[in-house]
Amino acid sequence: MKTVAQYTRIIEEAISALPLDKQPAGLYAPIKYALEAGGKRLRPVLVLSVADALCGNPGAAVNQAIGVEMFHNFTLLHDDVMDKADVRRGRPTVHRKYSESTAILSGDAMLTLADMIVMKGCDSVQLPEVLDLFNTTAMEIYEGQQYDMDFESRTDVTVKEYMEMIRLKTSVLLGCACAMGAIMAGAAEEAVKAFYSYGEKLGLSFQLKDDWLDTYGDSATFGKEIGGDIVNEKKTWLLINAIAEDTSGALAEVLGSKVEPKEKIEKVRGVYDALMLSDRCRALEEKYASEAVECLKGINLDAEARNFFESLAINSVMRTK
Amino acid sequence: MKTVAQYTRIIEEAISALPLDKQPAGLYAPIKYALEAGGKRLRPVLVLSVADALCGNPGAAVNQAIGVEMFHNFTLLHDDVMDKADVRRGRPTVHRKYSESTAILSGDAMLTLADMIVMKGCDSVQLPEVLDLFNTTAMEIYEGQQYDMDFESRTDVTVKEYMEMIRLKTSVLLGCACAMGAIMAGAAEEAVKAFYSYGEKLGLSFQLKDDWLDTYGDSATFGKEIGGDIVNEKKTWLLINAIAEDTSGALAEVLGSKVEPKEKIEKVRGVYDALMLSDRCRALEEKYASEAVECLKGINLDAEARNFFESLAINSVMRTK
Repeated sequence: MKTVAQYTRIIEEAISALPLDKQPAGLYAPIKYALEAGGKRLRPVLVLSVADALCGNPGAAVNQAIGVEMFHNFTLLHDDVMDKADVRRGRPTVHRKYSESTAILSGDAMLTLADMIVMKGCDSVQLPEVLDLFNTTAMEIYEGQQYDMDFESRTDVTVKEYMEMIRLKTSVLLGCACAMGAIMAGAAEEAVKAFYSYGEKLGLSFQLKDDWLDTYGDSATFGKEIGGDIVNEKKTWLLINAIAEDTSGALAEVLGSKVEPKEKIEKVRGVYDALMLSDRCRALEEKYASEAVECLKGINLDAEARNFFESLAINSVMRTK
Repeated sequence: MKTVAQYTRIIEEAISALPLDKQPAGLYAPIKYALEAGGKRLRPVLVLSVADALCGNPGAAVNQAIGVEMFHNFTLLHDDVMDKADVRRGRPTVHRKYSESTAILSGDAMLTLADMIVMKGCDSVQLPEVLDLFNTTAMEIYEGQQYDMDFESRTDVTVKEYMEMIRLKTSVLLGCACAMGAIMAGAAEEAVKAFYSYGEKLGLSFQLKDDWLDTYGDSATFGKEIGGDIVNEKKTWLLINAIAEDTSGALAEVLGSKVEPKEKIEKVRGVYDALMLSDRCRALEEKYASEAVECLKGINLDAEARNFFESLAINSVMRTK
């Protein structure tokens, strides 16, 4: 096994080597801009590391890693248009830097490119398997995004519905990334499924942590303003639980009111604290991280590989950004 | 061979049978709405009829026909957002009826669904061939749309550039439709290529006719206001030639000016008429239609099939809507 930093370097090199200096520049330059913004590269790291763990050759899945990262960045481009987001990874979003039409069209091209790239290197058995997984995952992600948008206008979202939404919107792509690495390594169906479940559970832990950091993180470390979700009354795990459980009336008073952002954040956090929601959220993150590791129990892995995936799960919970 | 109406019926039935009554309805209902609007179904008719001509079984390519139609409708959804179009086939566009976010996300889902559907029924030899063709075509179409948008802010677009733009934006999908029908019929490479070229030439003829109808058609028959392209100063074959050739100064006077739509249409048509552009455009449509038929010369087809594809080309030129 290599380190996360080493896998990341392989990914950055493969992304730099993509032939994107092409005409029409209005189509291809925004793709380059979006991809070069970096980010954690968590999904392609999963693809490479799973392939490495199962066949000793991360290179066997490098195209699938780049395809999954391309797909992920396509969803960000389009989500940012839908959410009217101005900033992504500290830079203007594509629709702000270029135009909305650019974000739509270059995003479309990224989806097709992702499809072309994940096909590369597949043999005739792997090809339908990889594409079925990839397309099914894509449909689930759109469904998740639709539920997320539907939740905006609802006040009766349950925790169960929320967990299913983040499973669709976030987790299945992590599951897909892991499973693709396994398929490209020529692994048996059992290992493919186990790694899919690992990624899926990791994704739930990861998204809950993201929600938690938006409220309880450190603005300087996290890289964005803390409390944005509260200000926007985004239906996160924290808010949904608070809406269901708060009997003080404090939450109902502040939601939908024209109170100042700073005061709103303070008051809502007060409600969360009274309900112990910070600790409960962190406990749930840990539960899913443990379940992720548990999924790999029956799979034949050497100690180094097992340790790598355990560390990833622990880091997901411990991270501060 | 069957008639166009018979192929169309097969397509309408297959579209009706798509499992789109699914949750979340916010994602799937707009897809149903878009697909059921009808239209000429030219692309899927090409897929089915080519397969029928080459192996006697249109059913061999019914999934590919539906996939290509799904893809075409995805491009319409996103193009309508980019163009801020209000009406499509006499009904509100998806982003007007629902929302812009819906048009983007449901469009994305249609692209992925198209990919899933064209895969169906492919054997292990056909699968990479069909997908390579489909994805390459998709990239060309995005490039065409980008050039089309780039042309809006340019005054020096050449006829050659315009023809390449419509080849990318429109013709390659007709070529792809024909080639997919041939691949699914198990045809030899020569026939696949010949039918691709047939569709490509047909597409050029078809798009020129569309441009011509927008200026010279009959509003009641064509189903939309005549002269929209002139009012919007859209860079069509007619306008690009007129800009290059008009020495009277009449065109320069009216372009960019705040003249009333009716007067603008009249004046620009006056310039077109003086340059004989209507007749020249129709001659070019006929030239490409003849070239399309010519492409099939070396291919072994029975008289009925050959007649079918000749009729399609003639109808493209003769149509009034």
